[in-house]
Amino acid sequence: MDKNTMRLNVDHLLIQALQEDITSEDVSTNAVMPSYQYGQVQLICKEDGIIAGLEVFERVFYLLDENMEVKFYVKDGDSVKDGQLLAEVSGDVRVLLSGERTALNYLQRMSGIATYTNRVASYLKGSKTKLLDTRKTTPNMRVFEKYAVRVGGGNNHRYNLSDGVMLKDNHIAAAGSITNAVKMAKDYASFVRKIEVEVENLEQVKEAVEAGADIIMLDNMSVENMKKAIEIIDGRAETECSGNVTKENIEKLTALGVDYISSGALTHSAPILDLSLKNLQVK
Amino acid sequence: MDKNTMRLNVDHLLIQALQEDITSEDVSTNAVMPSYQYGQVQLICKEDGIIAGLEVFERVFYLLDENMEVKFYVKDGDSVKDGQLLAEVSGDVRVLLSGERTALNYLQRMSGIATYTNRVASYLKGSKTKLLDTRKTTPNMRVFEKYAVRVGGGNNHRYNLSDGVMLKDNHIAAAGSITNAVKMAKDYASFVRKIEVEVENLEQVKEAVEAGADIIMLDNMSVENMKKAIEIIDGRAETECSGNVTKENIEKLTALGVDYISSGALTHSAPILDLSLKNLQVK
Amino acid sequence: MDKNTMRLNVDHLLIQALQEDITSEDVSTNAVMPSYQYGQVQLICKEDGIIAGLEVFERVFYLLDENMEVKFYVKDGDSVKDGQLLAEVSGDVRVLLSGERTALNYLQRMSGIATYTNRVASYLKGSKTKLLDTRKTTPNMRVFEKYAVRVGGGNNHRYNLSDGVMLKDNHIAAAGSITNAVKMAKDYASFVRKIEVEVENLEQVKEAVEAGADIIMLDNMSVENMKKAIEIIDGRAETECSGNVTKENIEKLTALGVDYISSGALTHSAPILDLSLKNLQVK
Amino acid sequence: MDKNTMRLNVDHLLIQALQEDITSEDVSTNAVMPSYQYGQVQLICKEDGIIAGLEVFERVFYLLDENMEVKFYVKDGDSVKDGQLLAEVSGDVRVLLSGERTALNYLQRMSGIATYTNRVASYLKGSKTKLLDTRKTTPNMRVFEKYAVRVGGGNNHRYNLSDGVMLKDNHIAAAGSITNAVKMAKDYASFVRKIEVEVENLEQVKEAVEAGADIIMLDNMSVENMKKAIEIIDGRAETECSGNVTKENIEKLTALGVDYISSGALTHSAPILDLSLKNLQVK
Amino acid sequence: MDKNTMRLNVDHLLIQALQEDITSEDVSTNAVMPSYQYGQVQLICKEDGIIAGLEVFERVFYLLDENMEVKFYVKDGDSVKDGQLLAEVSGDVRVLLSGERTALNYLQRMSGIATYTNRVASYLKGSKTKLLDTRKTTPNMRVFEKYAVRVGGGNNHRYNLSDGVMLKDNHIAAAGSITNAVKMAKDYASFVRKIEVEVENLEQVKEAVEAGADIIMLDNMSVENMKKAIEIIDGRAETECSGNVTKENIEKLTALGVDYISSGALTHSAPILDLSLKNLQVK
Amino acid sequence: MDKNTMRLNVDHLLIQALQEDITSEDVSTNAVMPSYQYGQVQLICKEDGIIAGLEVFERVFYLLDENMEVKFYVKDGDSVKDGQLLAEVSGDVRVLLSGERTALNYLQRMSGIATYTNRVASYLKGSKTKLLDTRKTTPNMRVFEKYAVRVGGGNNHRYNLSDGVMLKDNHIAAAGSITNAVKMAKDYASFVRKIEVEVENLEQVKEAVEAGADIIMLDNMSVENMKKAIEIIDGRAETECSGNVTKENIEKLTALGVDYISSGALTHSAPILDLSLKNLQVK
Repeated sequence: MDKNTMRLNVDHLLIQALQEDITSEDVSTNAVMPSYQYGQVQLICKEDGIIAGLEVFERVFYLLDENMEVKFYVKDGDSVKDGQLLAEVSGDVRVLLSGERTALNYLQRMSGIATYTNRVASYLKGSKTKLLDTRKTTPNMRVFEKYAVRVGGGNNHRYNLSDGVMLKDNHIAAAGSITNAVKMAKDYASFVRKIEVEVENLEQVKEAVEAGADIIMLDNMSVENMKKAIEIIDGRAETECSGNVTKENIEKLTALGVDYISSGALTHSAPILDLSLKNLQVK
Repeated sequence: MDKNTMRLNVDHLLIQALQEDITSEDVSTNAVMPSYQYGQVQLICKEDGIIAGLEVFERVFYLLDENMEVKFYVKDGDSVKDGQLLAEVSGDVRVLLSGERTALNYLQRMSGIATYTNRVASYLKGSKTKLLDTRKTTPNMRVFEKYAVRVGGGNNHRYNLSDGVMLKDNHIAAAGSITNAVKMAKDYASFVRKIEVEVENLEQVKEAVEAGADIIMLDNMSVENMKKAIEIIDGRAETECSGNVTKENIEKLTALGVDYISSGALTHSAPILDLSLKNLQVK
Repeated sequence: MDKNTMRLNVDHLLIQALQEDITSEDVSTNAVMPSYQYGQVQLICKEDGIIAGLEVFERVFYLLDENMEVKFYVKDGDSVKDGQLLAEVSGDVRVLLSGERTALNYLQRMSGIATYTNRVASYLKGSKTKLLDTRKTTPNMRVFEKYAVRVGGGNNHRYNLSDGVMLKDNHIAAAGSITNAVKMAKDYASFVRKIEVEVENLEQVKEAVEAGADIIMLDNMSVENMKKAIEIIDGRAETECSGNVTKENIEKLTALGVDYISSGALTHSAPILDLSLKNLQVK
Repeated sequence: MDKNTMRLNVDHLLIQALQEDITSEDVSTNAVMPSYQYGQVQLICKEDGIIAGLEVFERVFYLLDENMEVKFYVKDGDSVKDGQLLAEVSGDVRVLLSGERTALNYLQRMSGIATYTNRVASYLKGSKTKLLDTRKTTPNMRVFEKYAVRVGGGNNHRYNLSDGVMLKDNHIAAAGSITNAVKMAKDYASFVRKIEVEVENLEQVKEAVEAGADIIMLDNMSVENMKKAIEIIDGRAETECSGNVTKENIEKLTALGVDYISSGALTHSAPILDLSLKNLQVK
Repeated sequence: MDKNTMRLNVDHLLIQALQEDITSEDVSTNAVMPSYQYGQVQLICKEDGIIAGLEVFERVFYLLDENMEVKFYVKDGDSVKDGQLLAEVSGDVRVLLSGERTALNYLQRMSGIATYTNRVASYLKGSKTKLLDTRKTTPNMRVFEKYAVRVGGGNNHRYNLSDGVMLKDNHIAAAGSITNAVKMAKDYASFVRKIEVEVENLEQVKEAVEAGADIIMLDNMSVENMKKAIEIIDGRAETECSGNVTKENIEKLTALGVDYISSGALTHSAPILDLSLKNLQVK
Repeated sequence: MDKNTMRLNVDHLLIQALQEDITSEDVSTNAVMPSYQYGQVQLICKEDGIIAGLEVFERVFYLLDENMEVKFYVKDGDSVKDGQLLAEVSGDVRVLLSGERTALNYLQRMSGIATYTNRVASYLKGSKTKLLDTRKTTPNMRVFEKYAVRVGGGNNHRYNLSDGVMLKDNHIAAAGSITNAVKMAKDYASFVRKIEVEVENLEQVKEAVEAGADIIMLDNMSVENMKKAIEIIDGRAETECSGNVTKENIEKLTALGVDYISSGALTHSAPILDLSLKNLQVK
């Protein structure tokens, strides 16, 4: 994660997460450790997967105490194995203990998403189809989750409602027709944005491509109809479809030559990757 | 969720989540809907489960526009079925469209946790053992996730590092012994808090119970040893254990008569419950 | 301005601006008006121009007291004349007095930008060329200034560094070549974004268009070279140029058939439109 | 700008301005520069004027990365010339690129105000009259704009409604008379504040000076009447007048011996000073 | 307290104070009152004094729930007696219980300050001398404490370092002399501010008055010297002294004809006024 | 105070307090000290007492300028004497002057509470009874005031409504009976919390102890009844009483063998400890 994003869009979320966990003080730690003590602890992997979020993990400790040090033995995107030593964190033991849970909560979730994304992306290997995430992210976690998708080998769809245009059924209804909706969007939206239209049948495919849509989202179509849709579009727009990300399902879709497959599950239903801080040594 | 919590500890998170999704404006909606239009949309369930977070869902729309109205056909904790109509949201269509994703992201996640908790809790039926969550929650989502666990039939362990005392191996090491650690915690921590100690062997169980621990967490023990531990404790402290929440595993634990089983998976690995806003009618 | 944007991205700026002007209390008003008094004041135009920001003006008073009422006689985008009555504000006189300056500071600046944009846009009438703003906005005023440009008849370039891709000389240098830079941007950036490249000579124009740039920004080129560039591009990408927005200058550019002309002056150097709150009547 | 003001009243505005420009990440820069690279860029003047805001400019980069270094060749208040090298900024190129626009937006605007103020102040040279700014500043820019006025050779009127008392027609109407209003203000307002009264005719001038006003603002008076007003006041109060800041106009006012001339245009209508970051060298 | 101050400078402090008391939820109330119940409670005085802060008290409940109603039987500044019914609060009982402590913490402290100020101010009755507070307020309580001083019959010295000028020994040392310091302050500080100088001997008194100080603070002088100082000043500046606010002490100072006596104890050492919410009736 | 608490729950309050005192700039200091000057000042005690809050005092200066240095000659909890040198602060004189008041306002108040608590705690010497604070703290000062109570030799009752359960008359009324209320609280509240019940007569004492209350608060009982209550409880629950903290009163209560005495006065009515920054040396 780059430094600018970290400062501007991450730091305040990490502070807030730490405050969520320490509303007055860490009573357990303060009860038994009244003063500074130097120590070191190991970050151990407890499950095979893809690691993501190491800088965020480090930053949590840094925000509590800029003297904390983290030595990494892996980097984001690496495959990690059950039992593997990933990093060592050293500094004031009280900071180690108080920051541990928050740092791990971020790292486990981000690595879980990278791991899951990586598995789904592997089904697309060899095809021209790319894997996309969605806006179905956990609230106040988007910057972390979209990053984890990239680390896992996926691509990001629009970040939010402000940086991408997608015209769904309700927008089309409000505009009167796909043709109108695309025209209004081209007039209104910043000229740096492409226009994506969600369609449900071949009639609409035709109208969208003729209206000049840049991307066409084939929603809830049969495999047969998708095939026809791609023929109709004939390279004049990019194509996206969504669907359940089972291996079989995805193989069918890539065979059609669709450009993008998007999946909400990447961010909303990936289980975490199990990680642990172990073997504290107080010096 | 009660009104006080909503105002003090929820509203600012919802606003922040909406700002995450709308950093300048909703360009798609503003392009095609330049002015107010009244409409109504239905909240439809797409999967069987337990619903949780309806007031949060409603509040997202309310924070955008206090004239939005939500009519509920279910309440938190109800079993819901695939295809069921759960609620109707009405008001300015632009607010419906711009708030939809954030409102659903909360509701789907909270309902996913309630649903998963409910299933695990069912394994404990008939025993005296209670199900507990942990602090392994998604950052900046704890107030929502702990609530969802309760709705699903689970119980909450401590909210955070400030409202509960748990002495783990590192605290014990720092204090020199379990006996010392418990004594220091009783001296330091507010007298309204119980003292929980995490132990790994029977030696420690004995020391903890004699030191006056209120709760003893049996960590990583064999079923046999847990059985012995419970005999040693003999009602002088409450007992907690954690572990994988498979059906078989849990049945073994409840058979031992342990008071509490805690599970991080309730909050860190529950998949969402699939829900959707459908059938927009513009009037 | 739509309601969602107002709540999420405007309200906190208005509150902050009011706090900038009232750090403890309005001592003058509190000294002479110890209690509620109903009054009404008129918003009068003191210079011909285009009005923009009426809802922001109203919102400033509303945020101080939700019982304030504003009756408008014009709407955003209307031509207004020196001496014209634009609106009447009524409610607690103390709120009228304390909110006046902040409300006018927004309205005057936004209307100044709309007025200036409108004049420049008139030079483009009859051509296919569109007028664009830039990111040269006043800090913490972008949402207001970009809106005012639209009201004045201009179009918005990208909102910020997160929602549009523009590859300038430094990006190209870092990537090694225009070809590489465009490729890296296509791989990295969300697929909903177009790729704009800034070029300085015909060589670069050729490379950019072949690399698949969606928009080409002709920077600091002679009129002659621009003409050649547009021939080279031949509709395969959109074209943008920037420059001093004098009438003569702009007429030359539109004659070339360039798609967009961008101007920083719209937001960074427009003088305000003079407006005043007058004729307070206390009842 | 002093360090205390910077920390307490500037830093959060700079962060907010950076967040306005980078809501998720700088996609262009991140696409082509995945990792740290050291570079240096030059701050070049493109127009003659007075420079103001160099510390703010530097602070923008510092807030993104405390390892950025800025070497200045001029200081606030210096006359600068078209083409002049003003400073060199060095450090991580990604920070240079992402912070550039925000840093320049502040510096250009502050220098524009200093330049314009300087020109107006020159009309007052040789007279005892001082130039004042007003509260007609850009929202959330007051701390920067009032500072720039001082750098340009102007003086600051009250900072806001909390630190100065000015009794305008509406306050006087509410109090019943100038005499009452001044009395109420002296009773209420902190004794460290002077009382300024705005008057429109000679009758009022007399009443104000007898009521003990410290400063009398001559509003909308003819030159003749102002002359008489100053005779009536006869040194018993300071005098302020406002008006259009043309050279001729100001010469007339200074000839009268008025103590202060205030001008809203200094902050609300000064065009920016053109500045640029050029000649990036990546090492 | 006026509405503008409440919205801009009070509300966020009240919310923060409530969040300090409810970091996740009010567990006691939520445990026994799962749903809305209407009730009413009485605000009873338990000690004689002066009441101050009733609107702040009401606002705490309002911020939790805008349906709460408070009926007042007294107003700020009234003398209240032990046992007197001051107000009735009605609405959701859960809000009554959760907001009670924060509302009372403000009201008790503000009333304690008003009561103490009132007693000290009574020692000044019959003299021309006025009582002033200082900046020795409780952090983040100044807006409340300065208001309470006024309600109790005191006057406010400057609000903070930004709205008043006071030149103390260290400022004078930095400037080289009182004469220089006053000159520099007149040049720099907004012309709406008076200049106060702190002096310690008669030499300095002379210098200050000749330098044109508006107010002279006689610090740590004997009664005799203060008498001489006032003769030297002879109405050319206002005079302030501070000191222990015992009855005898103050009588000596007022006899000298000093204009102002300031006392830090008004805000830093006043005990609270005992108040209580009693007789809850649930309906 | 530990580092984690300082970062997460203290820093933003200190910044806010500094902003309360410097809303635009420190005009006096900026007028006479336009640039950096190194100096040193002494923290002198002006009254006997217990010092508390030294790290907070230091942190105020650090937050303005991380180059400030504070050398301490005492530590929190030490007895300090009138005239004693407690610390030396050195660095930029402008920071010394601008931060002085805020730093002292915290230190004086915290030390005042520690001093007062220490005196009251001394009445309990030799008994088993412990001294407790309450939630009657100054708004937005709780983290400082509860810490000061501990430094002074007192103990903390629950921090807030979220980390402790106390069932008062209104909760009991809502639940129907003490028995019900305790049961509901045990079911609802996190199992790490003890349940405290407030009772007013012996009947209730009996019911509470049988319902399994962990702590019983004897409210407004005669000494005789308290004696009987303690006999009834007979070690099955801890006991707390509150009351006026006169020496005689407390001796009676300790004689009864009550476990805890709580006193709101520790935080709401302790006068400050007089401290001063003196002897500035500019170098």
